Parts: sequence; C-alpha cells; structure tokens
Amino acid sequence: MRVIVDCMGGDKAPLEVVKGAYAASLEYNANFILVGDRAEILRIADAEEMDLRRFDIVDAPLSIEMTDPPLAVMKAKKESSMNVALTMLAEGKGDALVSTGNTGALFTGATLIVRKIKGIKRPAIASILPMSPPVLLLDSGANISVTPAYLEQFAIMGSIYMHKIYDLPAPRVGLLNNGAEETKGTELQLESYKLLSDSPSLNFVGNIEANMVPKDACDVLVTDGFTGNILLKSIEGMGKMMLRTMKDIFYSDMLAKISGLLIKKKINEVKAVFDPNEHGGAPILGISKPVIKAHGSSNAKAVKNAIRQAIAYADSGVIYSIARETKLFMPETSSKKTEEAAVPGASEK
Amino acid sequence: MRVIVDCMGGDKAPLEVVKGAYAASLEYNANFILVGDRAEILRIADAEEMDLRRFDIVDAPLSIEMTDPPLAVMKAKKESSMNVALTMLAEGKGDALVSTGNTGALFTGATLIVRKIKGIKRPAIASILPMSPPVLLLDSGANISVTPAYLEQFAIMGSIYMHKIYDLPAPRVGLLNNGAEETKGTELQLESYKLLSDSPSLNFVGNIEANMVPKDACDVLVTDGFTGNILLKSIEGMGKMMLRTMKDIFYSDMLAKISGLLIKKKINEVKAVFDPNEHGGAPILGISKPVIKAHGSSNAKAVKNAIRQAIAYADSGVIYSIARETKLFMPETSSKKTEEAAVPGASEK
Repeated sequence: MRVIVDCMGGDKAPLEVVKGAYAASLEYNANFILVGDRAEILRIADAEEMDLRRFDIVDAPLSIEMTDPPLAVMKAKKESSMNVALTMLAEGKGDALVSTGNTGALFTGATLIVRKIKGIKRPAIASILPMSPPVLLLDSGANISVTPAYLEQFAIMGSIYMHKIYDLPAPRVGLLNNGAEETKGTELQLESYKLLSDSPSLNFVGNIEANMVPKDACDVLVTDGFTGNILLKSIEGMGKMMLRTMKDIFYSDMLAKISGLLIKKKINEVKAVFDPNEHGGAPILGISKPVIKAHGSSNAKAVKNAIRQAIAYADSGVIYSIARETKLFMPETSSKKTEEAAVPGASEK
Repeated sequence: MRVIVDCMGGDKAPLEVVKGAYAASLEYNANFILVGDRAEILRIADAEEMDLRRFDIVDAPLSIEMTDPPLAVMKAKKESSMNVALTMLAEGKGDALVSTGNTGALFTGATLIVRKIKGIKRPAIASILPMSPPVLLLDSGANISVTPAYLEQFAIMGSIYMHKIYDLPAPRVGLLNNGAEETKGTELQLESYKLLSDSPSLNFVGNIEANMVPKDACDVLVTDGFTGNILLKSIEGMGKMMLRTMKDIFYSDMLAKISGLLIKKKINEVKAVFDPNEHGGAPILGISKPVIKAHGSSNAKAVKNAIRQAIAYADSGVIYSIARETKLFMPETSSKKTEEAAVPGASEK
C-alpha cells in the first residue's frame, strides 16, 4: 500500500501534514510518498526529529491556495503539488491520495486527472458527520446543483461505502428534506423521492429532516452540494460551540474544575465524537482511485486519521463494487455520452 | 393589548397552550381570547385549577392537523380554530395572535385572511436561532423558493425587527452561503449578494457560512425557506443532542451526579440557551398584523414566551416601520401587481 500525501495547501500545511504522515508511518503498514516543498519538508523533519528515510519525497513547492479557483489545478497551477500528486495516482505510482488542500480544486483535479468510474455522472464528496452512530453525507459541497439521477448514484455509492467500511448489511438511505412527507421539498426532492423509492438496490427510508440526522434516522444521507454544505458546516459549528461551552463551564472556577476532573474521561469521550480531527477525511466517491479530502484545518492527528481511512478505503473494494453496480444500471448506448458530461466543479468558482 | 391564542393543533394542544396562556395572564398586562374547543378548555381549567373568568373563550373545536395541507385553513377546514382566530385578528377583535399549529396553514391563512403589508412580495417566518447572541433567520421554512428581491425584503424586515425588539442600532445582515467569497453559491446567492450589497438601508456583512452562524457573525441571516428549514432544524437537532449528551454524562454514575451538582447553575444556563422552549415563537414578518408561530411541540413555558414575544412585537412599531420602509422602495406603478402576486405557501403542500 503506497499512500500519496499532498503536503501543501491546507491551513496548517505543510507542518501538520508531514507530522501526520510521519505518525501514520509508525502505525500503519504502508509506504508514503510526500509531495510538496522538499526543502521545507526536510526542514520540518529536522526540527521535529522525524526520520524520513523510508519516505519518498517529490519536490513540488507550488501550492494551490484556498482562494484559487478550482481550475487552477489544471491551468494556472499545473505544477502544483496537488496536480503532481493526482497525476502520480492516475499513473499508478501510488494506491491512494490524501490532501488537505482546496476542495474544489481537488474535486476538479480528481475528475480530470484520475477520472471518474465509468458510468458515474458526477462524483460526490462523502463526509462522515461527527455523531454516533456516524452518518455519511453526500454530496457535501462539490456539486451545488444536482439531478435526481445524480442523487440516486450518490445513494448507491454511499450505501456501498457504508456496507464495506462500516460493515452495515443494508445501509439506510435518507433524502434530506424540509419535512417527512413525500410531498415535501422542491422539484428535486419530489422527483428524487420517487426515483430512490423505486431503486431496487437501495434500502431507502424516505425523507429525513435535519433535526433527525443526529437521531440515528439513516446511515447515508443524500442531498445537493449546496444544502449538504450548509448541513455539514452547521453541524460542525454547533459541535464546536458545544465543546467551547463545556470548556467554559469546566474552567469557570475552582468548583467547576474539580467537577470537570471527576468526569474527565466522559468529557473526553464526548469530545471525541464532536472533534472533526477524529473523523479523518472525506472520500471523493465516483473517482476511479481512492482520493481522500481531509479538512483544510486538519492537524497532525486529523491527517493521520485521514491516512488510516485512505488505507481502509483502498483495501475495501468499494471502488470495484461501485464500478460493477454502475455497469448494471448503465444503458448500453448512453455510456459514451455520460462519460462526456460536463466536468463537475469546473464551472463552480 | 388583546392576545388571541389559537389553542388547537400543536403537539401538546390544547393542554399546554391553555396552561401557557394562563401563566402569561398572571404576569403580563394583557387580555386573552382563547379560540378552540370550549368544553375541552373548561375541562382543562377545572383539572388544572385555573380561573379563566377573565378570559374570552371562542368555541371552534375543529383543529388543523400537522398533516393537513396549508390550504385546509381556507377550504376543507374553514371552521377551524386557526381560521376563526385569524379572522378575529383581521377584524380587529384582537391585537396579536399566537398559534402552535400547522406552519404552512398559519402562513397561508395569515397571508389570505390578515393580508400582507402593502408592497411586501412574500412574508417570511423569522426564527430566533437558539444561540447567544441571538440570530434572526428568515425565511425559516415558508417560501421554499425565493428571488433575490424577496431576500432583500426579508433583510429589511429582519433588520427592523432586530433593531426594534433587540435594540441593535444597525443589525448586521448576512446571506447564508456555501462559502465566504462573493462568487459562491447558485444564481440566487450570486444575484442576492449584489442586491444586498447595493441596498442603502442595510448593514450587509456578506456571505455567512453555516459554521459561522453560532460565532456572532451577523444578527439577521437571510436564505430561502428550504435551506432555512435545514439550518434551523439542524441547529435544533444538535442542540437537543448536546443537552442529551450532557444529561448522559451527569447521570451516568454517583461521581458524575456529584460533579453535576457542583455546577448545576452553569448547566442550567447552557440549557436555557439551547432549549427551544425558552425562545418563544417566530413572527411572520410582512403580515399587516402580529402573527406569531410557536413551535409545534411547545410546552406551557414556550407558549408563555411566545405570548410575551407577541406582546413585545405588537407594542414595538415593527409593522409600522416595515410598511413605511417598503413604501419608500415601491415603484408607483407596480404596487397593484405586487399585491396580486401568487399567494405564498398556497402552492406548497
């Protein structure tokens, strides 16, 4: 297992990315290819006393910034670490890729360089929502507008992922909506409801309202990338507020501090549920090889967790199953046309 | 001040609604008109030992259920407590109305019976998000699709509300979006961004991502009703999960219980922020008289808080200011057409 790590572009890159990859190398049975500013990586290794002799380092100092448009990865910043890393994955020089960089650029680059699985209309970013049990949300930000047919594919891909990675025999699929009744939502939700209900390979449990998401209502939640982004970030924001509030409570005075000490273990368990750094990254499902998007603000622990997830994803056979399942649904004649569909993300600035 | 209370239709109606109105009558300088099943209301008064002699009770036993379509209030259930209550408000038999019933029906009924403020294209349900400091979200569910011009009016109405009710000199208006840059979002967000930026009467602070909402990024947050519903319910769901988690922590064993006792007061403060029952109801802004939608699951305390809010709203001059501000923006010739625009909510099942 060779994991390619794009070391540039995240909020705490390359320092935390390199530290995370190093931590992963001590625990997981894998080889690592670090792509980024070689001089900087070596300087970090020196300062942090990390022995990188077993690592391949590919020099690509140019980083895609969070403010760059997605297509920068293909055009203005063709020499970037992200492009180099994606090209290595496409060429089989590694088995999985982890990046903390610009989401839109990674999505666009994965689609154009690594390519989609045959028959997949649009790949989707699949995020594990920080709750217990976990819920897989897709799309969580890449495709701001979608069709019912995209959502059906998202549901199939998500079900395969949760089946293989979380060992769920028949993942429950929900459609994010503004009410439980099948008459709720815009045209998109109305038509998607029908399509998902009729899909023979899905365990569709109907519309899911946002307040039901933390209540174990489904395992896979599908929606357009705009609404998915709002839901994901709102949950992240509330989780952070919750941790902040608890911290405020337990640090307010001596009595509170004592109280906090009494239940330290339990507080840490709660923290683990809500801390995004614990949850690794989000696979871009529908891409023909494993590409994992780690949060832009990932620290070393988050990077390490994303690498763990990339290894599990690459080992799981998820991509093989998605390809096989998609083929079953693909009309013989339209496959060429589907492949030539507009590049997702490319038009989104 | 005469407050009309629709006693039917909520999850805990009429019991908790009547109890809430009674509690309000002990504290606030107002008269109450209870509209609902008279026999049932008198039975509750008897069982709960509440003296309702100072209350007017209008017998209207038919209740609109949560599963009824919005137009039921006008057609199939014209005799319902909600229709009767709205008609009394329209006819000046009361100064404000509180209902825990079907949101869509209340919105449709308010629009068709009480009528919009002249020049308002669509009224909006304005919810106070349970966080500190509070954020006013509109629309939070009534208009599943909107135009940039609607959002501009929502922003103006919300600003006036937060100015008058929360005493903010220049409420900061944000546009809910999937990124901070002005190039983010769908056509709706792109065009609304421009319109809001150019609006002379607004303190527009730009796009707001969902994770920034609990971080005091704005006072008024505008979006379409579909996305608003997702955000509101996700925040509610996470708030409830947080309270549940804290309860689990502090009830898990003896040590935890002792720890909880040490900081009971602080826990209660946190509960007060996240408990939807503390926050009263949501005004339907743009309606020519004060209509407050209380949460369907409201208990007596929530109903009492919604009544407090209804009184404050009716006393505030918000509706007068919205009418004046709207007139300034209204083109002379198009006002008739605007008034005749499709009824919001009516087409949404």
